[in-house]
Amino acid sequence: MTGTKITLAHGSGGLAMQQLIKDLFVKYFNNPHLSLMEDQAQLSLASFSNSTDKLAFATDSFVIDPITFNGGDIGKLAVCGTVNDLAVGGAIPKYLSAGFIIEEGLDLATLELIVKSMAQQAERAGVSIVTGDTKVVHKGACDKLFINTSGIGVIPENRCLGVSQVQAGDKVLVNGTLGDHATAILQARGELALSGDISSDCAALNELTELMQVAGKVHAMRDATRGGVAAVCNEISESSQLSICLKETQLPIHQEVRAVSEMLGLDPLLMANEGKLVAFVAAENADAVLAAMQSHPLGKQAACIGEVSDATTPQVVVEGLYGTHRQLQMPVGEQLPRIC
Amino acid sequence: MTGTKITLAHGSGGLAMQQLIKDLFVKYFNNPHLSLMEDQAQLSLASFSNSTDKLAFATDSFVIDPITFNGGDIGKLAVCGTVNDLAVGGAIPKYLSAGFIIEEGLDLATLELIVKSMAQQAERAGVSIVTGDTKVVHKGACDKLFINTSGIGVIPENRCLGVSQVQAGDKVLVNGTLGDHATAILQARGELALSGDISSDCAALNELTELMQVAGKVHAMRDATRGGVAAVCNEISESSQLSICLKETQLPIHQEVRAVSEMLGLDPLLMANEGKLVAFVAAENADAVLAAMQSHPLGKQAACIGEVSDATTPQVVVEGLYGTHRQLQMPVGEQLPRIC
Repeated sequence: MTGTKITLAHGSGGLAMQQLIKDLFVKYFNNPHLSLMEDQAQLSLASFSNSTDKLAFATDSFVIDPITFNGGDIGKLAVCGTVNDLAVGGAIPKYLSAGFIIEEGLDLATLELIVKSMAQQAERAGVSIVTGDTKVVHKGACDKLFINTSGIGVIPENRCLGVSQVQAGDKVLVNGTLGDHATAILQARGELALSGDISSDCAALNELTELMQVAGKVHAMRDATRGGVAAVCNEISESSQLSICLKETQLPIHQEVRAVSEMLGLDPLLMANEGKLVAFVAAENADAVLAAMQSHPLGKQAACIGEVSDATTPQVVVEGLYGTHRQLQMPVGEQLPRIC
Repeated sequence: MTGTKITLAHGSGGLAMQQLIKDLFVKYFNNPHLSLMEDQAQLSLASFSNSTDKLAFATDSFVIDPITFNGGDIGKLAVCGTVNDLAVGGAIPKYLSAGFIIEEGLDLATLELIVKSMAQQAERAGVSIVTGDTKVVHKGACDKLFINTSGIGVIPENRCLGVSQVQAGDKVLVNGTLGDHATAILQARGELALSGDISSDCAALNELTELMQVAGKVHAMRDATRGGVAAVCNEISESSQLSICLKETQLPIHQEVRAVSEMLGLDPLLMANEGKLVAFVAAENADAVLAAMQSHPLGKQAACIGEVSDATTPQVVVEGLYGTHRQLQMPVGEQLPRIC
């Protein structure tokens, strides 16, 4: 590659783009599908061994600002986000695509760091980035870098997770502290008077979800990204027409996140996470699944935070310290735009 | 939906986003996968009947400016582009994802038109949009609307298309006039002194590619988008280490495109198309494949424009009217940024 900045030529379909693809994407994402330089990846169905298995397909675009932060960057996030969308549905993530929209003038060194980070995270999560696309837009037509990842996974035939499986009596589990990602982004934006060193929880959860499903019957899982645990619980409550009661005292919340949220008037239950899931688990299996979670580095602080019931009006309620109850509504607007 | 403009709340993960998804995406893309409102689509492998079939996976982001133009809009383009990436590899396109990055303030009516257009084009092409994602960024952080589509198709086991199949003696076929899309975009941008009514060739080619493959042995196909026929031929020449000779007199070029390209000093061979493919076909099958192309509405003006040879130095050459030869190089930069 020549030059140190992305130019419009890098999105031209011509020589400069070919070089960018070879010197960056093919180099780091290193796999036989990409090096063919075709417009599509051709994947053997042998990896989907059983014709009664299902295919999971998910997509996510990432527009986070800033593009690097404590605990991650937009590339790591783009891999983890789509891996997690697949994993929480019971799928084993296999293949990712990566679509880049780049602002003219972006430092090539920055792009290289992010591509490297995607490659590392993909390897760690056991997925291959097998096809991609690069567009470059004029300075000012996008903010630095947006990345779309889409993913394909395989769902073994005996698995059936989803809202329809959630039942009264199910326990509500999370795999650790809430609101870390949102707090890390606030700090990275320099919008807080206080300094701090909270790290984003950005992580791929597919190893954890496999452990959980071996340990016991998981009825449904969702990753608690935009809208946080509040959005997940309200979606599940609305779709299943069941109520969910969360216990304030059981919520795992990092001390620093608690301080920031109190100061800014934010509710950690609404704050975005990028490595946290909410699981709805049959009561009789909840202890076993929780123990499995706690045995994994990404679930050390896992907790049971509530329970599903068939109370007459489906709603999400938080029980406070002194037995008080408040309704936790679906968030309406955006606490923090461009959080992912 | 309330209001007439997209707000940051529409990308929040909360109520406003849920409503946008239900009132727009689920309404128009109408299929059982989407209406489940899960983060992933779960697809039966039964549609991939044979375990020796392969899966094709492609992705494309669309950043075209303007977002509507004569003959299409960014939505139609986003469906056709990924359908074509799949089809030219020999795949039967099945499922698409759609990821929207929307600028705060975009008219909801504009977004609705584009979503409707995607739905219509998807139906016409026989694909379902089964999963999606919506992000909203501050005014000025992106230009109106970007769309990523990723797609999954099935490649029947007896098919094996690709650069590695191209041989000396192969005929080079195109399915119609070159440069229509680029010219339509130039006109839509109002950058031309002359008025005109060239329509973009934006179209899904999967029906055409099926007809062609029934008619005879197609060795490789590529859609001639950014970089045009020149980029396709140079990629194929470089990868196969074969030469390609195109005949200037055989190139199908609309009279108005010829006039525009001469006036602006553009080469139609480098201009972007969005409904044109270049096929490399065994000589003995070329007539049959060409006839099949001409029998389809999207191939009426199909033509044989050249031939592959094993000349010592792999290169792409254009033979002119009087037998002159010029080398057609890989385009280096961008003739027209944001053409797709």
